[in-house]
Amino acid sequence: MKLFTSIRSQRVTSLGERRLIGRIRGWLGNVCPPAPFGIGDDCAVLPRPGRSLLVTTDPVIAGRHFDAAVPARAVGAKLLKRNLSDIAAMGGTPRTAVVSLALAPATSIGWLRSFYAGLAQCARRHQVKVVGGDITQAPDGFFGAFLTLLGEATAARVITRQGARAGDQLYVTGALGGSRLGHHFTFEPRLREGEWLARRPEIRAMIDLSDGLAKDVRELVPPPLAADLQPDEIPIAADARRWARRTGGSPLEHALRDGEDYELLMVVDGRRPADGLLKNWRQHFPRLPLTRIGRIVRGGSAKFRLGANLLADGGFEHLRPDSARDRSR
Amino acid sequence: MKLFTSIRSQRVTSLGERRLIGRIRGWLGNVCPPAPFGIGDDCAVLPRPGRSLLVTTDPVIAGRHFDAAVPARAVGAKLLKRNLSDIAAMGGTPRTAVVSLALAPATSIGWLRSFYAGLAQCARRHQVKVVGGDITQAPDGFFGAFLTLLGEATAARVITRQGARAGDQLYVTGALGGSRLGHHFTFEPRLREGEWLARRPEIRAMIDLSDGLAKDVRELVPPPLAADLQPDEIPIAADARRWARRTGGSPLEHALRDGEDYELLMVVDGRRPADGLLKNWRQHFPRLPLTRIGRIVRGGSAKFRLGANLLADGGFEHLRPDSARDRSR
Repeated sequence: MKLFTSIRSQRVTSLGERRLIGRIRGWLGNVCPPAPFGIGDDCAVLPRPGRSLLVTTDPVIAGRHFDAAVPARAVGAKLLKRNLSDIAAMGGTPRTAVVSLALAPATSIGWLRSFYAGLAQCARRHQVKVVGGDITQAPDGFFGAFLTLLGEATAARVITRQGARAGDQLYVTGALGGSRLGHHFTFEPRLREGEWLARRPEIRAMIDLSDGLAKDVRELVPPPLAADLQPDEIPIAADARRWARRTGGSPLEHALRDGEDYELLMVVDGRRPADGLLKNWRQHFPRLPLTRIGRIVRGGSAKFRLGANLLADGGFEHLRPDSARDRSR
Repeated sequence: MKLFTSIRSQRVTSLGERRLIGRIRGWLGNVCPPAPFGIGDDCAVLPRPGRSLLVTTDPVIAGRHFDAAVPARAVGAKLLKRNLSDIAAMGGTPRTAVVSLALAPATSIGWLRSFYAGLAQCARRHQVKVVGGDITQAPDGFFGAFLTLLGEATAARVITRQGARAGDQLYVTGALGGSRLGHHFTFEPRLREGEWLARRPEIRAMIDLSDGLAKDVRELVPPPLAADLQPDEIPIAADARRWARRTGGSPLEHALRDGEDYELLMVVDGRRPADGLLKNWRQHFPRLPLTRIGRIVRGGSAKFRLGANLLADGGFEHLRPDSARDRSR
């Protein structure tokens, strides 16, 4: 059997990311435990005496996650920050990373030095150690750095994606959309916020927004639940408005679908008054809004609805036949 | 600064793998602890209450580690086995893996299913769980799978690459050379052997042979030590003789330089009689030879010597300007 095929229906792009992940879980069978101990949450949880371990992995690939306009330092920092955001989404503390490089022969030593300078600076800031890695030669024109990050649960529990119930509320940190105007490199992973939230009994489930609210919210609301989002309440970033002016579409659509927000989306227990949570949040994080954007309902087949309108799936798709428009992402 | 450069002296290939790793350690500074807690051993050791954790990472990349002639199942198994061998070299037990995929759009679903079948079968056999990963679209023609493996120390101690002293003896498991005739896919990582050796007080240091004895032995003998190898004692695989007939060179040269043996090379305390070790070894592993191949001497600037001849460095180089001859590796 050949690695690559010209028959469209037999290509991974015909499945899309979500279904391909489902297939991989099936192929692995009992080798992959159910989430959060296996595939399916922001990190995998490895139960331990004492505090559970968290594991996550995310790469940066030239032409896919960055282009020539992005400084090498920012690429190195982003590699770590993407993974830090996954640890934040479970309320964990990052500890240890390994980095596997696949490098074309023509890769510049100077560029790589700056890349590592950015990675090291970010690691120092978050007290992460980079303890190992691998270097392999790749075909001409290819650069990929694949980081695996280990962390530890901070609180007695880990916040997973599971736990939402009808009647619960949806909250999000920060503002959404327009990340390509800079936020996708300058974002701060919400580690302190995630750790704090993991200690609050009101929080039932959490995820970091990497593929856009419209897509990621579905991970928190398995059928027959759905998310009933209030369009007027969704915090729209100034860059989403700028980006909408430049590229068309409404600012709200960009807030829903651009992706790479790296904010935290969480499910708050609907039976508990949220006043205490919000008051305490403002004391600890006075500069970062925490906004109620909707609630969990029984939705039948709807993935989520926006005010009166039912919306189809959306957000960033990692595997699509035509990837040209996402090259600079 | 540009990612790729046409100036030879500024390319990563002008450094070679060993010096590039040295640079990366420098760039990371105090973010990378000294080996074995950071870069520089088969795995990084993460000290823990109870048993230390071990972390290692190795990929398989199309055109580099396999070609169209290799069945997808064998590629999937090899991805895990490469990493298992690193755990074996420290006397650890493998536990948990994550896999990051970079896939061209035309990647075949059927090929990938077989790849995961091979990976899952190998994981089941070694009781490894695959708990997570990532999927990212890569440029046309690229396929890379990047695995990070976590393990645990089995014995009270972990066997590192450090600890050799003048007067110690060098031993190797199995037979060396000619791996491209099949062994580089069919090999068995020496996990049981590594665990057993970690409990033997005679073993001072250990490494798995991935780049060839000539290159890997240097990792065990930092200056001013050198390895004095006995050419008549080096166990030469039948495939090394076959490969030598086909491609030229002596069988010994192939045993020294082919790489991908995935046997264990170890330093045995020269002050302890090795009879007990060998007798016990034969009882536990009657089918796998353990052979004394040389000793540790004070060598001045020599990296290692072979009988009367001083040999230059050698073995598989991961970064070289002309990689064409290694494509099927």
